[in-house]
Amino acid sequence: MAFKVTPWEVEGDIDYEKLIKKFGLDLIEDNILKKIKDITGDNHFMLQRKIFFAHRDLDFILKEYKKGNKFYLYTGRGPSENLHLGHLMPLKFTKYIQEKFGVKCYIQLTDDEKFLFKDKLSLEDTKKMAYENALDIIALGFNKKNTKIIIDTEYAKTLYNHAIKVAKKITFSTAKAVFGFKNSSNIGQIFYTSMQAVPAFLESEKKGKNIPCLIPHGVDQDPHFRVSRDVLPKLGYMKPASIQCKLMPGLLEGGKMSASVPKSAIFTTDSPKQVQDKIQNAFSGGKETLKEHREKGGNPDIDIPFQYLKFFFEPDNKRLKKIEEDYREGKILTGELKQITVEKINNFLEKHRKEREKAKKKLDNFLLKD
Amino acid sequence: MAFKVTPWEVEGDIDYEKLIKKFGLDLIEDNILKKIKDITGDNHFMLQRKIFFAHRDLDFILKEYKKGNKFYLYTGRGPSENLHLGHLMPLKFTKYIQEKFGVKCYIQLTDDEKFLFKDKLSLEDTKKMAYENALDIIALGFNKKNTKIIIDTEYAKTLYNHAIKVAKKITFSTAKAVFGFKNSSNIGQIFYTSMQAVPAFLESEKKGKNIPCLIPHGVDQDPHFRVSRDVLPKLGYMKPASIQCKLMPGLLEGGKMSASVPKSAIFTTDSPKQVQDKIQNAFSGGKETLKEHREKGGNPDIDIPFQYLKFFFEPDNKRLKKIEEDYREGKILTGELKQITVEKINNFLEKHRKEREKAKKKLDNFLLKD
Repeated sequence: MAFKVTPWEVEGDIDYEKLIKKFGLDLIEDNILKKIKDITGDNHFMLQRKIFFAHRDLDFILKEYKKGNKFYLYTGRGPSENLHLGHLMPLKFTKYIQEKFGVKCYIQLTDDEKFLFKDKLSLEDTKKMAYENALDIIALGFNKKNTKIIIDTEYAKTLYNHAIKVAKKITFSTAKAVFGFKNSSNIGQIFYTSMQAVPAFLESEKKGKNIPCLIPHGVDQDPHFRVSRDVLPKLGYMKPASIQCKLMPGLLEGGKMSASVPKSAIFTTDSPKQVQDKIQNAFSGGKETLKEHREKGGNPDIDIPFQYLKFFFEPDNKRLKKIEEDYREGKILTGELKQITVEKINNFLEKHRKEREKAKKKLDNFLLKD
Repeated sequence: MAFKVTPWEVEGDIDYEKLIKKFGLDLIEDNILKKIKDITGDNHFMLQRKIFFAHRDLDFILKEYKKGNKFYLYTGRGPSENLHLGHLMPLKFTKYIQEKFGVKCYIQLTDDEKFLFKDKLSLEDTKKMAYENALDIIALGFNKKNTKIIIDTEYAKTLYNHAIKVAKKITFSTAKAVFGFKNSSNIGQIFYTSMQAVPAFLESEKKGKNIPCLIPHGVDQDPHFRVSRDVLPKLGYMKPASIQCKLMPGLLEGGKMSASVPKSAIFTTDSPKQVQDKIQNAFSGGKETLKEHREKGGNPDIDIPFQYLKFFFEPDNKRLKKIEEDYREGKILTGELKQITVEKINNFLEKHRKEREKAKKKLDNFLLKD
């Protein structure tokens, strides 16, 4: 089945094996998991479950870390809409890595990008949304001392001054080949990847020496960092390492999460009732009738509520496995599985909303401004 | 004879009549000169001599001015090298217009552009040169209250925030058609015109209402402002008006001024001896032998020292005409004409150097910074 994955478009059923080959990524093998566990005493469930499944140079990052050469983290988010759970997932993982390794983290909110790529959004819209998204990010518990949030338009002087150095090394044909630009693409879109490259060497720039950078990100963003990895050595910086996650599925059949289809995703701003309704309507792997389900069992592999537990809401492997097996055997009904998921999401969101409220006071401590 | 005029390349003998048609400019006709004289009581010699020879919407600017709706000026300079006389010429004219009309002026120093378009220059080089060029500009006597100098990288936050609004309205095909970009062009070059567009609406932006903008500039920069005129109305701003000057010829035969050929231009940093030597070597319209010159006369139309008097150093029309006639009739020898020119240039530069020294203390008052 055909699929398409670019930083701005994801279509069809993604075949991650094919994607790895196409993008030239490495799978996260057991030996890497072992190295992480040696250092941190643990492996995050998203690593164990191959949700974070691929990487570039993660082994190098770990080797340097063991030598005492700490890396820093860089991740980001395009603030075109309120955050949904699919956005929170890699951010939550990043926060975990920060905590376990005790490292600095830059989080870039690309309000310029979203303005340039979304016809209908004004720069005021995306900037406002960047501030909203920042609250959700802070609410996840990022370390105040070690975390800096960059809203592109608020840090544009610093970013632009570095971005043009990147831009000078990227020809139009490279950008076209990697991102598929057309004659109708606007010239801001064409330039933009230079801005996204900057946090990948910003810490080295600030410290005046090369500091390894690790970028956890959704696999759709890989084209940006492929370009960054090509360019940064030409500017005297190391290639940034990266670690890629799969994209959390949308709630509806075969779909992705989309702001234009509110029922396709659960946003951090959704009420408990909205969560209940959305999960109720989510695509299920259960059978049509109660009788058939009890007899033949459900299919958790395609069941969205189950996938939400797997991607995010059931960190305990044993409990997840029990739910999976019971569902497959028809011991758990579709409605029951959905109810488990609703409760877990609502528990999470209740706490999240409180933290998000508190984040309003913390915001200034996190933002980098020119 | 073939010629090429782009913002980054000028080649061959420019046929200004053809260029006007190609670019779609209007000639500055006598009725416009009359309107200017009605307002200011005067016409600058560069207007009378058709050195500033073409325009877009200058009549609109004058009409609005008479109604009490003042325009503001915007001009600029790409700081790849020290300023030479060909750069000072339009700046001197701009200063005159500022004085006569009592208007505000923005002067943009595009260190980002020069970095992006000149392989060998680092951003540190062009930024440093921007500061050097700023001193020359201030030395010309621009009004401290009414003049703001923008060094792009120092004002990048403001510029970038506006530039992306421009960029969103310019497709790659437009940029390619206007500027001739190729697959090998870097993506910073492709984006750059958006940055150059910003001062054309910056005053309107700051004041929260549309203020007419007049851009005096060398005709080679017209492609940028053609694009700006196309885009700005889409953002709710007026089309900027413009007034174009011819390019001052280089000192050597058929050549242009070029930093890589030091003998082709006189820089503000040249010593009196260097000026003497350069004019001595300049291409002349005089005859080969003294006898022939006395008999047949020289040709001021192709004589570079004479052109320097015409473009810049002999504001008095009567005196210029006398020199021209005497030269044409062989009464003035090549060496004499050169000596007149050397003296005028050195007188100008002596005063300029003093003002340039004083400018160092004034710089901070002129610079716009984020």
